[in-house]
This record gives sequence, C-alpha cells and structure tokens, in this order.
Amino acid sequence: MRLITFKTRTTQPRVGIAISEGIIDISLHLPDAPRTMIGLIEAWPELKASLQKLTHECGPDMPLDAATLSAPVPRPGKIMAMGLNYADHVEESGLARPEHQMWFSKVSSAANGPFAPIELPQVSNQLDYEAELAFVIGKRCRHVSREDAAQVIFGYCAANDVSVRDWQLRTSQFVVGKSFDTHAPFGPWIVTADELGDPHRLGIRCFVNGEKRQDSNTRHLIFDCYDQIAYLSQAMTLEPGDVILTGTPGGVGFGFKPPRLLAAGDVVRIEIDRIGAIENTVVAESR
Amino acid sequence: MRLITFKTRTTQPRVGIAISEGIIDISLHLPDAPRTMIGLIEAWPELKASLQKLTHECGPDMPLDAATLSAPVPRPGKIMAMGLNYADHVEESGLARPEHQMWFSKVSSAANGPFAPIELPQVSNQLDYEAELAFVIGKRCRHVSREDAAQVIFGYCAANDVSVRDWQLRTSQFVVGKSFDTHAPFGPWIVTADELGDPHRLGIRCFVNGEKRQDSNTRHLIFDCYDQIAYLSQAMTLEPGDVILTGTPGGVGFGFKPPRLLAAGDVVRIEIDRIGAIENTVVAESR
Repeated sequence: MRLITFKTRTTQPRVGIAISEGIIDISLHLPDAPRTMIGLIEAWPELKASLQKLTHECGPDMPLDAATLSAPVPRPGKIMAMGLNYADHVEESGLARPEHQMWFSKVSSAANGPFAPIELPQVSNQLDYEAELAFVIGKRCRHVSREDAAQVIFGYCAANDVSVRDWQLRTSQFVVGKSFDTHAPFGPWIVTADELGDPHRLGIRCFVNGEKRQDSNTRHLIFDCYDQIAYLSQAMTLEPGDVILTGTPGGVGFGFKPPRLLAAGDVVRIEIDRIGAIENTVVAESR
Repeated sequence: MRLITFKTRTTQPRVGIAISEGIIDISLHLPDAPRTMIGLIEAWPELKASLQKLTHECGPDMPLDAATLSAPVPRPGKIMAMGLNYADHVEESGLARPEHQMWFSKVSSAANGPFAPIELPQVSNQLDYEAELAFVIGKRCRHVSREDAAQVIFGYCAANDVSVRDWQLRTSQFVVGKSFDTHAPFGPWIVTADELGDPHRLGIRCFVNGEKRQDSNTRHLIFDCYDQIAYLSQAMTLEPGDVILTGTPGGVGFGFKPPRLLAAGDVVRIEIDRIGAIENTVVAESR
C-alpha cells in the first residue's frame, strides 16, 4: 500500500491511499480513522485490513493532481540520517570509512513535501543533493536485535538529504548544515514494508535537470536498514513516524572537481525502484 | 512567572503556575486555555494578563509535592545544544576554541523531567553531566538579528546535557551519545523572560552527591543567548517550545584525570540563580 499525507485547496492535511488512478481519501470511507500519518501508523494493526479492503474495492476519490502531497509524516518526532554509508561516497568525501555507524540528525522543521521547492539559502550558495532510501518506524521500540528489526519498519520512502556544505563542515558537527528549512523532502508516499519486500535490492538514482548524477543500489549500503535499527535502538527509543535516512551513494555535487552544486531553478529528482520519485525545484530563499 | 507541566496520580499532564505555596492548575481557572505548554506559549500574548491575575489573586490548588513535574515542554519540536561555549570547558576538553558556533542536537525523545531518574545505559558506563542554562523559544521566527533576539525567548530553565562519552566520541558526530532516553532533563519550570531579567548574569552550579563539580556564571558564555538565536535562525525556523541548551562550563566528569563519571545511585543537581534547581538520580537502565 502507498500511504500519503495530502491536502487540497479546501481541506486540512489528511491521510490517504495512492492508487494508480488517484487518491482514496481515508476520512471519507473510515470517518473514525486517524487523520494524521503518525496516528494511522499507531493504529495500523487494527486498520490494515480495512485499508486493504478500501484499496481493492474503491475507486479514487480524486485524481492525484487535485491534491498537494505533504511529507508523508509532516513533522516526524525525529529524523536521523547516516553519513558515509556507501563505499563510493566514502571515497569521494575524502574521509575514512567509519568503524562505527556515523549518525547525525536533521531537525524536524526541515521536513518538506516530495514536490515542494527546496530553498537556496540567503547565507550560502553551497547547496547539494543526496539521494537516500528512507524508512519510517512503525512501532515504539528499544533494544531491537538485527533479526527483529524488519518488524519495526512501517515502510519506505525516497528522500533527499539536502545539505549546505559550508555550514555542514564549518564545525565538526553537521546538524545545522543539514537542517535548513525545506531541506528534508521525502515521499512521495510511504510504501508499506509488506508491499516493498527486500529494501536492500533497490536501484537508487538522482538526476539534476535530467542529468544522472547518482546511480547505485541499496545492496551497496555498508550498514543496512536492520543494522541501523539495531544500533540506534541501543541508545534511543524509536517511535512511530520517526524517519531514518540511510545514507547516500557516490555522485553528490560536492564530490565533483570542481564541485557541481545546485543553483536556483535546478530540478532535483530522486528515484528509487519500487518506491517512486520525488522531484524538488531549487528556489532562492525569499524572506 | 514560573510555568510548569505537571501530572498527578489521577490527571493527564497539564500546565500550571508554580507559586511559593504550591501549584495553580490553570485548567481549573481558565477552562478554555491550552492544556499543553506549547499551546500556552503560542497563546501567551492573549493569556499573559489572565495568568498574571491568577498568580496574584489565587492561592495554590495543590502543594507542589502533590504533583510530578514533567519537562516543562514534554516533547520539544527540537532540542539544539551548543558545544564548547565556556572557555574553561574548551580547555578541559582538549579541543580548539571553535571559530563558529558548534551546534549539535539532542533528539526530542530524550526529554526528561526535572526530578526524574536518568539512566545509566546498558551499553556504556561513561555517563557524564553537563550543567547548562536552557532557553525556550516563544515565537516562530527566522532571520532574527542579535538585537531582536530577546523578543523571541519565552523563558529559561536549568538543564543537564547528559552525555554518554564513548558513544558521543566514537564517530565525529555527537548526536547519538547525546540522545539516550532520559538524557535531556530540564526545568523545574520555565521562568518567563520578563521575570528573569538578564540571562547573562546567572551563577550556574552542578553538584554530584552534594559535591560541587561545576561553578561558573553565564556571563562567561562565549556566544550568548542572543548570538545563538541570530546564528541558528539564519538556517532554521525556531518555533514555540523549541529548547536551546547554551553550553556547559568546566568541571564535567570527563574533564577530571582520571575521569569522574556517574554511577547508579549518584544524584546530580543543577542549580541556576533566579531559576532554581533540577535533581536527577542515576539508575541502571532496566529493559
């Protein structure tokens, strides 16, 4: 199932199911169901059968282009992101392959829709893209073994770990340079784990203005999704709707010599097999 | 005014005013007022006069010890924390004084009450304390100048930036070692900015089992609260209820030779002039 958070010109954000012909608005068919994605994830064990029935039996309530897709989880409790998790990206970064998983965070206020603009900041022109497989946590959990990790994943998205390189690297800590407003677009929907199958056999590509810049496969992840859950959950409780970005392969703009960074008007497309694509246009920040 | 989030054995968490004799339960006097601290902060311009009237005219609805204080903002949208922001702590860390503000984050699921236990993790015995002045954002804002920064601060708290040193330092990025469950206790209340006055003339102390370990003054902050807002808001929107930890002075356990880290049973007290104290007992994690 492909679950979305969407709004129309006349409605508040709500949750729906994307089918090939359009959107099933869950609130119209199940008025008592949660209206938020985190609520829906928490209620999933009870709701799943009804939602599957809707998917098979209902036609769309509206075409996909009648709605604006938000980030599937508009405001995650946390967004954790891994650095240096594909060998070719480790190489282009000029850094050593880490012994331990190298995590940073993106603050939740950076979450952004799958087709929304991403801002070229007033304070930097070193804007870069990073195509990443993201997964969404389905169950509150701590101390999850690698063997049990698949059970706590609700589903998967395509994400762009947008990065402001000078701010990322001006101190040892990445978080500010990774957390500019609009710099965590993901989606276009959550493909539920049962539908996706193996998350570690997916082609992942990034295009800038149609030119392929990144082209890899999630089988090349150094630490896979299950390793990531096992590691993080030793430290922190993972909660429904938390979003984990699993790292980017080689080919980021900063890896080229000279760097090929993003400018206003550029269109960045991240595609992942069996998930779909997000596409964001760079706009100059205006405030 | 001193604003709290509290619960009793029979009630859901709600907001109140701490007065010297006890707690004014806002919901009993203003049934339409928000029940959460973030809601109250957002409604502050309209509510302030009514809350001041309550403070002056009402007696307490219950004694302070009839309630359990939660973190004043139980689940902040983000918790940003600054590293290396007092000269003596820079020195004991053995690191260079940073040219730019060095920020990391603590994930929101680490937020903890002012008198709640802090966990000695199963996976580490390198648990450390860091006494810090924290402030809470009052207004949604971006690109705030240093001159205007005081206007977006709602109030102040005492905080303990609890740190798991081996996990903090095993990669270049601190966030996981700073984000273990229970490792962001703060409070005991929010002292509103109008009541506190100048936040940069406050004695700040940390005691472990009654022994003074840290003893400084916020006038020694390298980057003060207003610098911090000016810097962060260049990158990210700050929102009501976001919590900013301003850095710790010298005297952390890891700065001693040999290190004096925390063990189960230790009691850590953080005191800040004109704010008050939080006190947390270390307990072995049991899950």
